[in-house]
Amino acid sequence: MIFGEMNMRIAIYGYGNLGKGVEAAVKQNSDAELVGIFTRRDPQTITTVTGAPVYRAEKLADFKGSIEVVIICGGSATDLPVLTPGIASDFNVVDSFDTHARIPEHFENVNKAALSGGKTALISCGWDPGLFSIARIYANSVLPDGSDYTFWGRGVSQGHSDAVRRIPGVADARQYTVPVEESVDAVRRGENPVLTARQKHRRECYVVACDGADKNEIKEAIVSMPYYFDEYDTSVEFITAEEMRQKHSGLPHGGSVIRNGVNGNCGEHKSTIEFSLKLDSNPEFTALVLVAFARAVFRLNGRGITGCKTVFDIAPADLSPLSADQIRRKFL
Amino acid sequence: MIFGEMNMRIAIYGYGNLGKGVEAAVKQNSDAELVGIFTRRDPQTITTVTGAPVYRAEKLADFKGSIEVVIICGGSATDLPVLTPGIASDFNVVDSFDTHARIPEHFENVNKAALSGGKTALISCGWDPGLFSIARIYANSVLPDGSDYTFWGRGVSQGHSDAVRRIPGVADARQYTVPVEESVDAVRRGENPVLTARQKHRRECYVVACDGADKNEIKEAIVSMPYYFDEYDTSVEFITAEEMRQKHSGLPHGGSVIRNGVNGNCGEHKSTIEFSLKLDSNPEFTALVLVAFARAVFRLNGRGITGCKTVFDIAPADLSPLSADQIRRKFL
Repeated sequence: MIFGEMNMRIAIYGYGNLGKGVEAAVKQNSDAELVGIFTRRDPQTITTVTGAPVYRAEKLADFKGSIEVVIICGGSATDLPVLTPGIASDFNVVDSFDTHARIPEHFENVNKAALSGGKTALISCGWDPGLFSIARIYANSVLPDGSDYTFWGRGVSQGHSDAVRRIPGVADARQYTVPVEESVDAVRRGENPVLTARQKHRRECYVVACDGADKNEIKEAIVSMPYYFDEYDTSVEFITAEEMRQKHSGLPHGGSVIRNGVNGNCGEHKSTIEFSLKLDSNPEFTALVLVAFARAVFRLNGRGITGCKTVFDIAPADLSPLSADQIRRKFL
Repeated sequence: MIFGEMNMRIAIYGYGNLGKGVEAAVKQNSDAELVGIFTRRDPQTITTVTGAPVYRAEKLADFKGSIEVVIICGGSATDLPVLTPGIASDFNVVDSFDTHARIPEHFENVNKAALSGGKTALISCGWDPGLFSIARIYANSVLPDGSDYTFWGRGVSQGHSDAVRRIPGVADARQYTVPVEESVDAVRRGENPVLTARQKHRRECYVVACDGADKNEIKEAIVSMPYYFDEYDTSVEFITAEEMRQKHSGLPHGGSVIRNGVNGNCGEHKSTIEFSLKLDSNPEFTALVLVAFARAVFRLNGRGITGCKTVFDIAPADLSPLSADQIRRKFL
């Protein structure tokens, strides 16, 4: 708690990797406190890392008035489209909805719910969408004439790992998305190359095969998989379950947003803006972003600004626990 | 002009490198138009690059009501502390005030003036202070536990170039600030080194000596100059006026803001956030940032939000000419 402002009481809805990340992130933010974790599973089956209390999801309604922001940690495919509008009429919420094509629809649903209850919601928060989106809008606003590039990785893609795990004969799998170094370098040099999917990223798969499975068949099924792998150069390495546990249990990720622009009276000069992340833990970092934006959501609601927002609507000052004067002295 | 919004009529006050940059930047922003250039010099002596009209500074008052934002392009040492508060009571303004220690005082003076006239002012805009400041607050807000680094360059430092030019026997000089590569790499690897000024940057000077000047004396005067050079490794190379004109007439700059943080329940994971710029023309890029923030200032004033602001108070959406819906579709 910094300048006499009220502590921000946070609830976590959903206790997977992201929910655990938020639990850790709250500990790092001295103006935040964790009310509890709400889950659709049996609370008895869950032991939290910090000893935070666990409640049945239905219990959330009992906490109206004693939670400032609910951070909803569910999947974008089926959870969040239902959960976020459902909760946003009673609580300020933040989610990490990342199904790009469905954002307009999700935005409308959440906006209606939040407005109906006088609450403030922020959707599609994290690092992409999230901090990368912010990098794109700043870069585009200051460089009207230019080209945008986003490179992801080296990092674990959960979606691609899951896709490999669904192949018959696969016991476990981890997929790393890796930016193609020569392409990144060309972009950084301001060359504005036109790049295919294959030229931007390659994919590395580490696979534990079931006993007796045909490895050649598995490999063929991976590299030819439409959309996920067929447009990329994909390497497949078979490893033991033990090796998987030892070398591939982390969830690192990262990447770069780069915009190359031209300026001057005749476009005679170049400018390059780059924003990049290197993360040991994707869910922990995403969680830290969610908590910073929860602070902004809490403040906006206090000012009577309600409805659905995105990261674009939040002034940077509202993310910081520091006062306006401290911010100017420390960061300007 | 994009979604039926009014065009933004911009005036430039001061026509040096930065003013010329704003003249070019306005051309790149289709919702902006240039009313004219206001100068304390004799307008007859000035030919503008785009043919924009030039007026005596005193004429500015005649344009009340037909200028949305005045971009004040003066020096921080003596111009802006007087100019910005002087103009901010009659016009929305943006400046690039960068004397860090005097920002609180400048902020107060500009705030009083802007509030008195119901105008909106934004000070200390550009890339540092400006986009680098924004990178710092985002990085600090999402990574509460970490270390900040700023590296500048490779780029021309006007202040250091001027300092060399003031040495007796120096006809012309250009000073490049260069980040020490090994230190940048160590920071990028997340090593969190404690770095002295010498370990962070080195300084390269290119000097045209006057006929008969003692070059050893000049070199000694440079490398021993307190504050500017004595704490750095400085190289001095003597060149001809022709070489200076051919190889060193540009004003490139850039740099990186890096924050290394720890996260997880016991700080067991690392995260690195980096924001970097590579600019062929420092003043042209700074000007583009000023114009994007002029757009936000214009909008804030339209909403009745007056007084002095900084880049921290501006939501990213207000920098873009696109609508909220377009922004979500394009950048999220």
